[in-house]
Amino acid sequence: MKNIFSAKTASPPAGADMEFANGASGTVRAVIDAVLPCVDGGRFPVKRVVGEPVRVRAHCFTDGHDVLRVQLCWRAHDQAGFREVPMKPLGNDVWEARFSPPSMGRYVYTAVAWVDPFESWRSEMTRRVDPDDVRIAAQVGALEIAAAAARAEGADRVALQRWATELDAVAASPASDVVSLKALALDEEYAELARRHPDRRHAVRHPVELPLVADRERARFSTWYELFPRSASPVPGAHGTFRDVEARLPAIAAMGFDVLYFPPIHPIGREQRKGPNNALEAGPGDVGSPWAIGAAEGGHKSILPALGSAEDFRRLLDRAAAHGLEIALDIAFQCAPDHPYVKAHPDWFRWRPDGSVQYAENPPKKYQDIYPFNFECEDWRGLWAELKSVLDHWIGEGVRIFRVDNPHTKAFPFWEWAIGEVKRAHPDVIFLAEAFTRPKVMHRLAKLGFSQSYTYFTWRNTKKELQEYFTELSSGPGIDYFRPNVWPNTPDILHEQFHAGEPAVFMSRLVLAATLAANYGIYGPAYELCEHLPRGPGSEEYLDSEKYQLRHWNHDDPASLAPFIARVNRIRRENPALHWDRSLRFLHIDNDQLLAYAKESPDGSNVIVTVVNLDPHNTQSGWLGLEPASVGVAAGASFQMHDLLSGQRFIWQGDWHYVRLDPHSVPAHIFVVRRRHGDERDFDYFL
Amino acid sequence: MKNIFSAKTASPPAGADMEFANGASGTVRAVIDAVLPCVDGGRFPVKRVVGEPVRVRAHCFTDGHDVLRVQLCWRAHDQAGFREVPMKPLGNDVWEARFSPPSMGRYVYTAVAWVDPFESWRSEMTRRVDPDDVRIAAQVGALEIAAAAARAEGADRVALQRWATELDAVAASPASDVVSLKALALDEEYAELARRHPDRRHAVRHPVELPLVADRERARFSTWYELFPRSASPVPGAHGTFRDVEARLPAIAAMGFDVLYFPPIHPIGREQRKGPNNALEAGPGDVGSPWAIGAAEGGHKSILPALGSAEDFRRLLDRAAAHGLEIALDIAFQCAPDHPYVKAHPDWFRWRPDGSVQYAENPPKKYQDIYPFNFECEDWRGLWAELKSVLDHWIGEGVRIFRVDNPHTKAFPFWEWAIGEVKRAHPDVIFLAEAFTRPKVMHRLAKLGFSQSYTYFTWRNTKKELQEYFTELSSGPGIDYFRPNVWPNTPDILHEQFHAGEPAVFMSRLVLAATLAANYGIYGPAYELCEHLPRGPGSEEYLDSEKYQLRHWNHDDPASLAPFIARVNRIRRENPALHWDRSLRFLHIDNDQLLAYAKESPDGSNVIVTVVNLDPHNTQSGWLGLEPASVGVAAGASFQMHDLLSGQRFIWQGDWHYVRLDPHSVPAHIFVVRRRHGDERDFDYFL
Repeated sequence: MKNIFSAKTASPPAGADMEFANGASGTVRAVIDAVLPCVDGGRFPVKRVVGEPVRVRAHCFTDGHDVLRVQLCWRAHDQAGFREVPMKPLGNDVWEARFSPPSMGRYVYTAVAWVDPFESWRSEMTRRVDPDDVRIAAQVGALEIAAAAARAEGADRVALQRWATELDAVAASPASDVVSLKALALDEEYAELARRHPDRRHAVRHPVELPLVADRERARFSTWYELFPRSASPVPGAHGTFRDVEARLPAIAAMGFDVLYFPPIHPIGREQRKGPNNALEAGPGDVGSPWAIGAAEGGHKSILPALGSAEDFRRLLDRAAAHGLEIALDIAFQCAPDHPYVKAHPDWFRWRPDGSVQYAENPPKKYQDIYPFNFECEDWRGLWAELKSVLDHWIGEGVRIFRVDNPHTKAFPFWEWAIGEVKRAHPDVIFLAEAFTRPKVMHRLAKLGFSQSYTYFTWRNTKKELQEYFTELSSGPGIDYFRPNVWPNTPDILHEQFHAGEPAVFMSRLVLAATLAANYGIYGPAYELCEHLPRGPGSEEYLDSEKYQLRHWNHDDPASLAPFIARVNRIRRENPALHWDRSLRFLHIDNDQLLAYAKESPDGSNVIVTVVNLDPHNTQSGWLGLEPASVGVAAGASFQMHDLLSGQRFIWQGDWHYVRLDPHSVPAHIFVVRRRHGDERDFDYFL
Repeated sequence: MKNIFSAKTASPPAGADMEFANGASGTVRAVIDAVLPCVDGGRFPVKRVVGEPVRVRAHCFTDGHDVLRVQLCWRAHDQAGFREVPMKPLGNDVWEARFSPPSMGRYVYTAVAWVDPFESWRSEMTRRVDPDDVRIAAQVGALEIAAAAARAEGADRVALQRWATELDAVAASPASDVVSLKALALDEEYAELARRHPDRRHAVRHPVELPLVADRERARFSTWYELFPRSASPVPGAHGTFRDVEARLPAIAAMGFDVLYFPPIHPIGREQRKGPNNALEAGPGDVGSPWAIGAAEGGHKSILPALGSAEDFRRLLDRAAAHGLEIALDIAFQCAPDHPYVKAHPDWFRWRPDGSVQYAENPPKKYQDIYPFNFECEDWRGLWAELKSVLDHWIGEGVRIFRVDNPHTKAFPFWEWAIGEVKRAHPDVIFLAEAFTRPKVMHRLAKLGFSQSYTYFTWRNTKKELQEYFTELSSGPGIDYFRPNVWPNTPDILHEQFHAGEPAVFMSRLVLAATLAANYGIYGPAYELCEHLPRGPGSEEYLDSEKYQLRHWNHDDPASLAPFIARVNRIRRENPALHWDRSLRFLHIDNDQLLAYAKESPDGSNVIVTVVNLDPHNTQSGWLGLEPASVGVAAGASFQMHDLLSGQRFIWQGDWHYVRLDPHSVPAHIFVVRRRHGDERDFDYFL
């Protein structure tokens, strides 16, 4: 009998010749239909955070009414043996267990299941009532117990043998009492002993070992601040330096950020350099775009001399760390026409018959000052190795976070290889993908290894858009591999919502970003100071953008949002509910300008309810639906809603609650739910 | 550099050593993220019907802005080479193509994609405006075309060489006109020629060949009638025979059925035989349960002598076929205590210490007259081979449809093996799984190979229950492998809805079954004659069930629903919309006792709208939402709703339509939508 399935078919089924996958026999009756979470059948790893319990579910069953045992198997990818955790049935043939990755790195997990003769017998025994049935069943059980004894050793073996002998003797004695016979058969202590020595000859193991990456916590919860070091000088018109950035560190840390991200810090090309506002011609004093990387002074491993030395950079990393800030670098794999690579490796670029290279484009944007690499070139291995050595160089300097520019315009296999290699040696490295492109492409990059991903948040503005998008982000299949990092603005994107410059818009978008997503960031100085003028009507580009020129920021402006940002980030830091994306749920509120949602910490102890007025012009009010039971409060009991933004406290009771927000003061509430403690003899006390 | 992934991980990723799956290199930039439909990553086949177009979608993209070409690859499982069909982009990185399996059997399909340099160049060329850019691009194109010429032969090669030479020459000539240069570069006829010789060196093939089973049409669309041949005698009290069944064939065919299904027709055990109403003791004249298979006269390959001979059975098959009816047999793999297997193969049963075998149970049901097989026995290979030979025996007799009794109490690997083997030799065989059990188990059986599956329809009675359940059946992942066969009643299940005996309930449940599902059936004589008395209050068992005794049915009863059933089945047969499950959509109607839904044929030409009054006591009315555009009628145009049950015709216009149903006449409409043809000078004419 020939196997009817193609050899290439995903997984061989029960063989036509009665030979089965894994060398199992036809007597393997346990079925594992699925093990979850699972990304593309195990092709890509699930992402979690070190120490965080990973909840694994297996869909397992067997024919008939026999009883299964199911174990979760997990190990670090480079360890030999699996550790096993018993899985518990949740009903509907779903079994669950958890494991916590003890350290950063890559893991695999799967499940094993078997029809357990001892448990099957025990389950049947509990149902037996008829005295003859009980006696026969006890005799059958004695055989199972004796078999378990044969599998055991030492004291276990002796105990099980004793139990088997006694059970058989009592069952055989016509004088014995059936009630005590059944009690002996169902003895829980003995059963626990028998369970330690199961008959696993017919166990089935799920054929796929599902991969998982355990990152450090910052991959899941981070607060980013972007600035251009060259604009950090306190002196208007002077080129900023790393030393100038050092002076800003206390203020940035005080605002509650933990990642400080710089656009590229490398020498900037002189050929085709851009002038202010993306002008095609640069004047003699123009500084050019930091993304036009490379000039005579060096390329991706060098530092623009005007910013400082390698020594200055390392010192900055240290000072930042002292303030709880990590420096994230920009990785833009592309070259200015005068990058040293262009001369040293002309074969890495695609030359046209006229001896030119077509400049980079990300339609409709044109980067006349940038050459793209040709990832298909003959020497792709040499190119890849060199690009990875750029990452290695900065890791060597102490950098552990990279924001990758336009990864979707570079070959996908490169990222999987490069990120995989880097994280094998340095599992603490975090990669943020700056790919504003089609959904499947963004998801693929996340699957390939990017720790975090930019999102469409900037263009999701109405209640309906925000609800749909964040429901997808927090509950879609991406939840296992796509970690959103949401930005109200970037140096590339000044959404038209901001063009009128209303502080209410800056505040509401900040609150949305900070409370809807566990990872968020702002392009800082421009945001705190409500920079809002576009280069032209309808443009998403900033007027006089720092991308092409130095800017000077007045951090002493009394209108600065810095204190507001600091308050929001402090609320984030202090409330674990806001450290995860998964628990987000939108609440009903009968006003299309009010958006309300709840998040809770994994243990349910911390619940945050955010309400945002999306209308920057008018006070909006409405009735918000929040059932007390859904936030851990008994129905009918009152609870306190403590607005951490304003400090106000409200007592709520019942299911519907009146909310009113004036955009001219603060357009949002960030409530923490405080449940009542104590009793009627005490003063009310809410925790 | 060592591969960081475990060898057992589902599919090796881009290799850490820069070596890639499939021997591909890092220059493979096309990505195939998914190929659909796909059941469990290709572990199980998708089910379709021979000749029916299979719509395959692939999620494909590449980095940057280059252009992909994607091909669907398909072949019969035992053929060597793939046939390829170009896939077209639908947007959002989804590509689609179709193929139609030309004959019954097993197929595989997958997709191949590559970044196409010629198409990428052509796409870029269309965007070029600047004369210098056009000239340079034309020269680049000439190189691509020359490369295509080198891959071609004969006339194609000559033509492509001519094109390349001309394009290059025109591009190089400063005197040439840029408009005509661009026209030459974008010449569509030449392009078609170049497309025939693509550069597929960097093509990627989806690593899984996805399996598909092409059944005959009856697997997707069938109308079942169940009867007990032993009750077919026209003489009350006499044991019916196959000859008696022959006499019933014209009436059953006239009712519009195409499958006639019999409970087991084998000798019935005498040991532990059951009496009427499941009595534990049988009297001397009692006939026993047909599912207690096997006695001295023979077992699963034998026929109960009282029904007739093997010759009579073959004759019945022929006569039935002449009436357009196929006989379906019951496969119940279990034995009466006096089945010949019990003596010949005692090792196939699980003997207890007291020398007894525990009878079969499907809690809470007890089958004291039945021994289950032990699928885990030492001689499982012998047992399996013998059971498969039972199928082979009846196939040899001409049977091609089997209804399998309680398949979920037999080992799952057995079914995958046995059904796979049978269908390899006889792809026209259809298996119906009678598994009323938990959802994941029912789905697994369908995945393993059962062509159709019993459902929970019997217990889905309210509007909400029906909408939820049939939405799941027609749109959930099961749509690719789980074909529902819905039954309002079976000899085992008389739902309490029927206990009052109202004809309106029998009619409405029949209409629901017949129009919600492409496969349905009834336990016939009891249904036509509105048999409705349960064995006891709240019982789902029939009083005086045919399972344990002979019954006599008065087919001349003027209250028989036979004419109604015939009308419903004729509507089914004549309207292709009802031959598929996939197009079902529920319509809004503002009355919880009225259920409304639409189905359409794959080409959209046939649209059926069914409205059912679920209340057997009261006339119910409501407004039904049906937008004309959703049934192919222009907004504002009127259309005719022709009720095929009553013959009445209604003219509808606009989105909301009044419906009223009196359960005391007919509790349902089955409308066919007739669109207006002709114009204002004609009489209205609807097709």
